[in-house]
Amino acid sequence: METRKKLINDVSSCVDEALEGLVRSSGGLSLLKDHRVVLRSDLDRLKGKVCLLSGGGSGHEPAHAGFVGHGMLSAAVAGAVFASPPPANILAAILALHEAGASGVLLIVKNYTGDRLNFGLAVEKARQKGVTVEMVLVADDCAMDSISKAGRRGLCGTILIHKLGGAMAEEGCSLDQIVSRLTVVLKGVGTLGVSLSPCSVPGSLPTFDLKPGDMELGLGIHGEPGIQRSEIGSADQVVKTMIDHMTNPDSQSRLELESGDTVVLCVNNLGALSGLEMGVVTGAVLAYLESRGVVVARAMSGSFMTSLEMGGVSVTLMKVDQDDLLRLFDASTSAPAWPNLSAVCVSGRDFVVEAPTMGPRSQDITYPTGPLSGVMENVLESICLTLQRQRTNLNILDQECGDGDCGNTHYDFTQAILLWIRNKPIPGCPGKLLAGLAGLAEEKMGGTSGALYSLFLNAAAGHVTEGQSHPAAWAAAVHAGTEAIRRYAGAEPGDRTMLDALCPAVKELMKMTPEPLSEQMHVLCAAVQDVLTGQFSSVRRPVPVLHMSGRVHQPFVHAVWTQLLHGLHQ
Amino acid sequence: METRKKLINDVSSCVDEALEGLVRSSGGLSLLKDHRVVLRSDLDRLKGKVCLLSGGGSGHEPAHAGFVGHGMLSAAVAGAVFASPPPANILAAILALHEAGASGVLLIVKNYTGDRLNFGLAVEKARQKGVTVEMVLVADDCAMDSISKAGRRGLCGTILIHKLGGAMAEEGCSLDQIVSRLTVVLKGVGTLGVSLSPCSVPGSLPTFDLKPGDMELGLGIHGEPGIQRSEIGSADQVVKTMIDHMTNPDSQSRLELESGDTVVLCVNNLGALSGLEMGVVTGAVLAYLESRGVVVARAMSGSFMTSLEMGGVSVTLMKVDQDDLLRLFDASTSAPAWPNLSAVCVSGRDFVVEAPTMGPRSQDITYPTGPLSGVMENVLESICLTLQRQRTNLNILDQECGDGDCGNTHYDFTQAILLWIRNKPIPGCPGKLLAGLAGLAEEKMGGTSGALYSLFLNAAAGHVTEGQSHPAAWAAAVHAGTEAIRRYAGAEPGDRTMLDALCPAVKELMKMTPEPLSEQMHVLCAAVQDVLTGQFSSVRRPVPVLHMSGRVHQPFVHAVWTQLLHGLHQ
Repeated sequence: METRKKLINDVSSCVDEALEGLVRSSGGLSLLKDHRVVLRSDLDRLKGKVCLLSGGGSGHEPAHAGFVGHGMLSAAVAGAVFASPPPANILAAILALHEAGASGVLLIVKNYTGDRLNFGLAVEKARQKGVTVEMVLVADDCAMDSISKAGRRGLCGTILIHKLGGAMAEEGCSLDQIVSRLTVVLKGVGTLGVSLSPCSVPGSLPTFDLKPGDMELGLGIHGEPGIQRSEIGSADQVVKTMIDHMTNPDSQSRLELESGDTVVLCVNNLGALSGLEMGVVTGAVLAYLESRGVVVARAMSGSFMTSLEMGGVSVTLMKVDQDDLLRLFDASTSAPAWPNLSAVCVSGRDFVVEAPTMGPRSQDITYPTGPLSGVMENVLESICLTLQRQRTNLNILDQECGDGDCGNTHYDFTQAILLWIRNKPIPGCPGKLLAGLAGLAEEKMGGTSGALYSLFLNAAAGHVTEGQSHPAAWAAAVHAGTEAIRRYAGAEPGDRTMLDALCPAVKELMKMTPEPLSEQMHVLCAAVQDVLTGQFSSVRRPVPVLHMSGRVHQPFVHAVWTQLLHGLHQ
Repeated sequence: METRKKLINDVSSCVDEALEGLVRSSGGLSLLKDHRVVLRSDLDRLKGKVCLLSGGGSGHEPAHAGFVGHGMLSAAVAGAVFASPPPANILAAILALHEAGASGVLLIVKNYTGDRLNFGLAVEKARQKGVTVEMVLVADDCAMDSISKAGRRGLCGTILIHKLGGAMAEEGCSLDQIVSRLTVVLKGVGTLGVSLSPCSVPGSLPTFDLKPGDMELGLGIHGEPGIQRSEIGSADQVVKTMIDHMTNPDSQSRLELESGDTVVLCVNNLGALSGLEMGVVTGAVLAYLESRGVVVARAMSGSFMTSLEMGGVSVTLMKVDQDDLLRLFDASTSAPAWPNLSAVCVSGRDFVVEAPTMGPRSQDITYPTGPLSGVMENVLESICLTLQRQRTNLNILDQECGDGDCGNTHYDFTQAILLWIRNKPIPGCPGKLLAGLAGLAEEKMGGTSGALYSLFLNAAAGHVTEGQSHPAAWAAAVHAGTEAIRRYAGAEPGDRTMLDALCPAVKELMKMTPEPLSEQMHVLCAAVQDVLTGQFSSVRRPVPVLHMSGRVHQPFVHAVWTQLLHGLHQ
């Protein structure tokens, strides 16, 4: 294991610098000089009210300083990374709030021995100075089956307590009222975390070692040991394991949760989980809770109580049996890390809207066949099978200038075409055929290629109808398609795109007249030759920023033209 | 390289599940059936107004669906991870907004070929259906020195455009007004990213390979190549490199930035950077911009446009030369991913508050010496030097049941004591001495040990004064200190803490009388023996959840007692 290099200036100064970064960018926050304490800037609004103070070791950002603001904490004190703050700093915060006119100060402390001792020391000293102070311990960890003397650890449930306590203080409740209310609420708060990768304190080795692909259930937010290691399961499985463990009747640290209960849910990113995974996990938690008959009144999902860059997530449930609690939860706050939530019950809400009717897609309409249908079918099948045979070669070529999936995307497209022509009669009108192919490119191929082919085919479609499909009409169609690509891709011949092959071929093709093709085969042959030449000329150097790079989008163009030539010769 | 295991259910369903997770937990959002489109739930409020639509590949959460809401986007369409959405889905979103009564639809598109083509296709189709549609391309990447035909890439500046455009739409501006305003604004938007570690698309290998300790400047949000690799410097250096490059007059893609300019700053977590690092970087950007004479009007710092779990950060600057733009930026929004910002100018704000006066610290007060001062000094020096000699041994012992720093923390404490007794006379009053030592433990030792020793010494201090320092008084002092630890740590003898050693010793000591110590040395000897016995009895098994584990907090107790014995014998 190695010490991970962090984006900081210095291990010893990083906490102070991070606090300053937060405070400077948040208009509503101030720093208490020399004390690692973040305060509300509007201290004058605290007069006569209960003030809330929390804090603890750093490394859990945005906790706690991000939750300072109107309607939440009045101040937060930070220790070194993963270390409890010294009592002198806590005392300074208490006294600052006292001097601002607080009617009392409530300390919200996560249940870790260091925090309990240091905040306890500060409480004793503050009381000696005549300040009215109380402490509420948050101990919401549902990991351990049996509760030790030290009690459950304090985890992400803490921020819900900040919110409810802050709303009560803002409403003018007394210190006693807030303490007794929060004490009751806390009995219905439970949290469990799962970790996929460790974090490291700046300048130190990772807090633990976990095999890639493994996860650990029930870790503390400083990487303290959890209760079980296993392979990472599916999100649904992991969520079920977590909620079942949290509510396991055999566990002393369980949250009592029954069908019919109403909860506030907080899905907390421990640091490095992607937003995509957070969304999946949040959805899985909601679905599983509802399958157990639990009503989710509110849900929040994001980074609230992190463990530096730990890869993992914790789930906090807070039982809310009175509407009054939701009113406090929904109350406004200016705390920078509190998310934009809406006061709507999550469970039971209809969240799916019917899509507008878009008319049948071109590829779904059944058109009558015509004299060209047979030859069209042969040509298409031949093109598709050629491209499918070249799948691996195309992928290999694409690896040099793209993401190596050119063969795959063309396989998907041709597979869709083959399925289509086997299930639908080939439209007698060539324009309808091209429109159908455009639809398939768009839907089944996707990405840049799908869009380019669709643009080409859609633009071409209008130029060839059942009554007008002579060689000059086809030439006009190819011209229109090429121009569409030129316009939307913002590219020109010479930019090493498929236009290098298409444009010279189009120029040649435009010599076509409405006379029968058999009399103008030399024009078609020259055009095909241009495609081949253009293809090779463009194989120079990939242009990464122009995502429509040369080689990878030519196979279809190439295959169409050469196979067309074969098909029409047959 | 290996495929990283993700917390999802299935690669093919993860985008849909993540969208559903977001929508379900956000009361103001809905899903358009079968189209990976997230819409505002209050579609009725869009009637007659311009609607804003954005989107692109997934993997950039919270972008773009997290920015759907009153005052920002009306809808967002998501493609597969890092892949542009198909035009059919984009068209469905446009038509849904059109059917809701939009006076026009503005598409805000990041400048990637795939997005340009797919959104372009949808625009063409929507126009064919009679919908008034316009497109604004965001191309804010300042990485490349020369701009290719494809133009600058679209990055995190996009979300600022969502915000301003959304506020204008909410105010009732016309489509033309919004387009022309945003077109001007966009000329003053620039972004640059730096990456410390790659991300991986679900089911795929990491997007690139980067040596630990190295960083790459100027990557795209899909891991497209940047412009320069180097060792990770300090946060200040990295920030300077970024801003200097963004504004380099020799670069075609530069942002013109001069002293006196006013900007909105967005520091964006690309995924896995810790909140601590984000705070440090944000502070560094503010300081560097101000050192260049730039006024930062607003700053936002968080996860806005991520690249899955990429470790890195991007900096976006938007020039705001009119107050009117700030008004739009400050306008309220219900978009779940927009942070709680305050409308206060960052630069020039006084953010430091003077700390309350706390009176001199015990260890700073100079007290007169007394007859015991000499022996006290000898005892203390001896204790400190003994503990310093044992530093490594204590660390090794602590590695088995703690974080291995017990020797270090005791070294810090004893070093502070030695410095103190060399610079200050030893107070003649033993209580003042203990209070001074308590202050040093609190400030210089820190953590759990510092708090415990401070609690002990503070509680003991009141029981021994200059007039009352006979053996029974000392016994009472040790008793009071032990009881304080017992109370605040919530531990009892038998819990494998230092109480296992202290409590029996205290019981023995309480046999002391006010008679001279020389007549009661057997009591002191028995007490010391109890400490030693207690120490060994507690060396059984570490109790991780009780952070005040046995062995690691005993060295001081042990050293004090044995050295006291020696000292008093001398």
